Amino acid sequence: MQFHHHGYVSGNPRVKPAAGVGIDRPEELPDEVDVLIVGSGPAGMIAAAQLAQFPNVVTRMVERRPGRLVIGQADGIQARSVETFQAFGFAQEIIAEAYRITEMAFWKPDPADPSKIIRTARPADDPTGVSEFPHLIVNQARVLDYFAEVAANGPTRSVPDYGYEFVGLEIADDSEGADHPVTVTLRRTAGDREGQERVVRAKYVLGADGARSGVRDSIGCTMKGDKANHAWGVMDVLAVTDFPDIRTKCSIQSEAGNILLIPREGGHLFRMYVDLGEVPADDHHKVRETTIEQIIARANAILHPYTLDVRNVAWHSVYEVGHRLTDRFDDVPTDAAGTRTPRVFIAGDACHTHSAKAGQGMNVSMQDGWNLAWKLGHVLEGRSPESLLATYSAERQVVAKNLIDFDKQWSTMMAKKPEEFASPSELEDFYVQTHEFPAGFMTQYEASLIVGEAAHQELATGFAVGKRFKSAPVVRVGDGNPIHLGHHATADGRWRIYVFADTARAGEASAVADLAEWLQTAPDSPIAATPEGLDRDAWFDVKVVYQQPHTEVDLGSVPKVFLPHVGPFQLVDYEKVYAADPADDIFEQRGIARDGAIVVVRPDQYVSHVLPLTATTELAEFFAPILRAGEREPANA
Amino acid sequence: MQFHHHGYVSGNPRVKPAAGVGIDRPEELPDEVDVLIVGSGPAGMIAAAQLAQFPNVVTRMVERRPGRLVIGQADGIQARSVETFQAFGFAQEIIAEAYRITEMAFWKPDPADPSKIIRTARPADDPTGVSEFPHLIVNQARVLDYFAEVAANGPTRSVPDYGYEFVGLEIADDSEGADHPVTVTLRRTAGDREGQERVVRAKYVLGADGARSGVRDSIGCTMKGDKANHAWGVMDVLAVTDFPDIRTKCSIQSEAGNILLIPREGGHLFRMYVDLGEVPADDHHKVRETTIEQIIARANAILHPYTLDVRNVAWHSVYEVGHRLTDRFDDVPTDAAGTRTPRVFIAGDACHTHSAKAGQGMNVSMQDGWNLAWKLGHVLEGRSPESLLATYSAERQVVAKNLIDFDKQWSTMMAKKPEEFASPSELEDFYVQTHEFPAGFMTQYEASLIVGEAAHQELATGFAVGKRFKSAPVVRVGDGNPIHLGHHATADGRWRIYVFADTARAGEASAVADLAEWLQTAPDSPIAATPEGLDRDAWFDVKVVYQQPHTEVDLGSVPKVFLPHVGPFQLVDYEKVYAADPADDIFEQRGIARDGAIVVVRPDQYVSHVLPLTATTELAEFFAPILRAGEREPANA
Repeated sequence: MQFHHHGYVSGNPRVKPAAGVGIDRPEELPDEVDVLIVGSGPAGMIAAAQLAQFPNVVTRMVERRPGRLVIGQADGIQARSVETFQAFGFAQEIIAEAYRITEMAFWKPDPADPSKIIRTARPADDPTGVSEFPHLIVNQARVLDYFAEVAANGPTRSVPDYGYEFVGLEIADDSEGADHPVTVTLRRTAGDREGQERVVRAKYVLGADGARSGVRDSIGCTMKGDKANHAWGVMDVLAVTDFPDIRTKCSIQSEAGNILLIPREGGHLFRMYVDLGEVPADDHHKVRETTIEQIIARANAILHPYTLDVRNVAWHSVYEVGHRLTDRFDDVPTDAAGTRTPRVFIAGDACHTHSAKAGQGMNVSMQDGWNLAWKLGHVLEGRSPESLLATYSAERQVVAKNLIDFDKQWSTMMAKKPEEFASPSELEDFYVQTHEFPAGFMTQYEASLIVGEAAHQELATGFAVGKRFKSAPVVRVGDGNPIHLGHHATADGRWRIYVFADTARAGEASAVADLAEWLQTAPDSPIAATPEGLDRDAWFDVKVVYQQPHTEVDLGSVPKVFLPHVGPFQLVDYEKVYAADPADDIFEQRGIARDGAIVVVRPDQYVSHVLPLTATTELAEFFAPILRAGEREPANA
Repeated sequence: MQFHHHGYVSGNPRVKPAAGVGIDRPEELPDEVDVLIVGSGPAGMIAAAQLAQFPNVVTRMVERRPGRLVIGQADGIQARSVETFQAFGFAQEIIAEAYRITEMAFWKPDPADPSKIIRTARPADDPTGVSEFPHLIVNQARVLDYFAEVAANGPTRSVPDYGYEFVGLEIADDSEGADHPVTVTLRRTAGDREGQERVVRAKYVLGADGARSGVRDSIGCTMKGDKANHAWGVMDVLAVTDFPDIRTKCSIQSEAGNILLIPREGGHLFRMYVDLGEVPADDHHKVRETTIEQIIARANAILHPYTLDVRNVAWHSVYEVGHRLTDRFDDVPTDAAGTRTPRVFIAGDACHTHSAKAGQGMNVSMQDGWNLAWKLGHVLEGRSPESLLATYSAERQVVAKNLIDFDKQWSTMMAKKPEEFASPSELEDFYVQTHEFPAGFMTQYEASLIVGEAAHQELATGFAVGKRFKSAPVVRVGDGNPIHLGHHATADGRWRIYVFADTARAGEASAVADLAEWLQTAPDSPIAATPEGLDRDAWFDVKVVYQQPHTEVDLGSVPKVFLPHVGPFQLVDYEKVYAADPADDIFEQRGIARDGAIVVVRPDQYVSHVLPLTATTELAEFFAPILRAGEREPANA
């Protein structure tokens, strides 16, 4: 965490100085905004938290509820999401209060007496160390609280506008040249003026308004997928039981049906998904009349010979979910993609619905929101052309499609009867083989405006182009601190260029020295696009990792581009020069060539490019269409 | 973190439900209190945070300043203090914003050209892994913020009473039988009623009011020690320099004098202690007229050939410190110790002053405050007799004496000229050899009412009786989570009894099974002292650690005392049953006998006793004089 460089900070350094539109932020929702977010669930909230880091972007988030979410339905947090929380600064805090999944137990009928269940397997949850972060369970309401805190502590001091529901919107034709082309009608849901309508004009709108999204309907998107739904009884309860794995995630299959057991945060609460079977289209939601007593009775039957004495029900529901997806995530029809600027986007449950069984919904929704938000920030700040925005639908619709395909397999398998499996271990084998998917690490974006061709992937095999940057340990030269390189990739909207050095030492003539000189001085260096008046590292965070131990890197010989002067006092930033940790060498861990490599990482932590140290031309060409230097007003960050 | 067991908690689980005196806590300072803390520095603040966990104890803390400390002088945080922060729930948060010391560099005159300094050594800060927590630098103001948050979130909702200074106090004679025998006069320092006096009657008073403590004077204590002081120019600055170790803790000795360099939190700020030499008693504080320009000039001379371009001064001071200590830490004269109940205590700088060079002051002060606060809580709640309070002065005065002896050696050595050392590496050798002391781990309390004789130390050589319980990894059986056993020893005021099992498995006849039965049912079991109406684990947190891997421990066979039913729903607490981690066996790591051992740990994390599993008589005898079951009203926690 870096601070004090604009002068002494006495209080909590997580509260950033108010800047730009955050200095006199109006409490009342204004008539014109840059970005209007509809809905304060995971997709909307992360977008608000990311946009709060762009001081000159007016973002407002409206929410139908009169206040904070008290109890949410989602609770599964993939390791990828915890990496994301790290970027937003609250991973350790949420880990401390969450339940951590380290293994999953599988229970099945005892072959000797099929009326009883027995434990048949207990595989580790993350056997390959897919992330340095854990897999957690914590209620969605707390996730939202943390993002809300980040947004409120950001330079724009962003807080939700509670008590507004979405009524409708209209998008002006591009030819009209409107500055705020989206006209949104809202209605107050609470307070003195309940029922009154308000019109807000926005440059962009994000519909993060859930499965029954009004924004989605307003742009003519429809959900397509299964006709039949699957029904689940779900309950969050406090209970006394002799079932020994009550604090372990379990798949329980018995002759009486199936349960997915999810222990919850706090050491006592747990959730049970009790399978109520497929619901025909003509059921007319009759299944929803299933009572909590019926769910508890079913759970007891499934758990036999163990018993469950429920003492308190925190929440329960019967719900039906189908696998449904929209074919696009913005207002530009698929056949017109790329021909005009999208103005309205949808994210999260507004685009994709599926079972809760793989613990995916909140996680994918957050990645939707993050993917879009930094792009909006860059376009609105003038860093990038509007064409950047078309990559949102292109990237995220594919992810949602893959998710739904995976979830169909997984939830079908979870609902099978024991005798229907091809082999006794089919379910746990599938769980182990596919664990990277539910952990959130199978997303791999294709080549696009912001993802390069993987022509040089062999230079850094552990940083797959299009996948998220997998952090690894290094040592910071300035202070000898062991740190995780990726944990410095915070959600500050910056591109990152990691220069993994060749074998030459700092100060010797080398490809790194030449690259550093080019980055610092060449007119086509991406850094040169950074407007005058901003810190040299305001748009690009350029870091170097040397192969030698940190005691052998002479800071006085490190090229200046890695030791930029920042802030009003033009102090040196010492947090860009690293050395491999001899005990856990990042070059070995991530398959980085000893001749070095450039690894370009997006503001949302996905690897954009892997290039040789000499590839200055390719680097310049990659960034040329992304950056709009000279076409913009200098930002006053 | 455990919660939800009294029903669903929607918000931040760190905010505990208000209880007892916290339910209708008066904003205004009341006329009568149980504990009055004078001063909100590290000693006072930790005491307030600890006492805030005792719902029926009225604690108020007065502070001369009108509000929060904005910039403090102390900044060194020993690993022992970070362990303490873990107990109070904010270690990870403060680590994230602190500077972490991993090594210390030693600079000396270059033998080839003594006008220049060169780096001669760079030893690791904690080569032996004395703690799993790091050594940090972070401003005292932030430490206080975190403790204040803990106090405010505790059941008593404790917040400081700002704007009151201490005027004087009187202690009624025991024979008068006064319920609140200490009458304290305060004066308002701010607001409408500035200058007005207030009288508050207290059962106990803690003077944590600094080096010029009025409380100390009021109980007739005097500081004794050196006549001459040592002067230091100290500055917290933002600067540009070519000195390569500016982000590393350094001892710099040159022909022009000595510097201790401490990098500070945030990546840019650093502190320099510039040696101004011994000050004779007749200097009349002339040395304090040294200007910041003179300090900077001296620093530049010492750093030659490097230069320091100071761009911003956050804080600076010239101060003189001697080594001084009081002979007692309470109002009972040394020759009357044990004959009557102490009513007034002093802690922190009120008792001991010394150089800042070893980074000790704030750390020792916090341990003072914690040592006293749980004892006050236990006595006021009726758990323990008043005789417990005499152990405070007995334990902490010795620690302060050792500290001052150490600091005399260290600061004398730091002030030496290069040519005065016996060997070129004398300074760094001393640093490495004694590193456990400044890290805070040399404290070892002697046998007393609350520390047993170390007659069975060989059963757990890694848990030295009288020293702090050094945590080690284990696996929680209920959920397979790897955890640090000691991190569950939170500052909740409870005694802890760790039962390290023999080789028998849970469910087999064994010494553990017999001990568990005795703990659960015997009338002389310490647990039996817990009043009716409280959870069975309200006073004693009893945990078991089995030698088998967690997958081989059958929860259904674990004795009931390790799976207590708690709270209004009488739910099972699953966080008391552990297994050794085969990859890092706690029995090996801490030298625990394979026949098992009982390890008793105090509420402030110090080991009270190590006993064989069969030593029920000794365990009962140890606790008999500490507990006052039957003599008290049932507490309503």
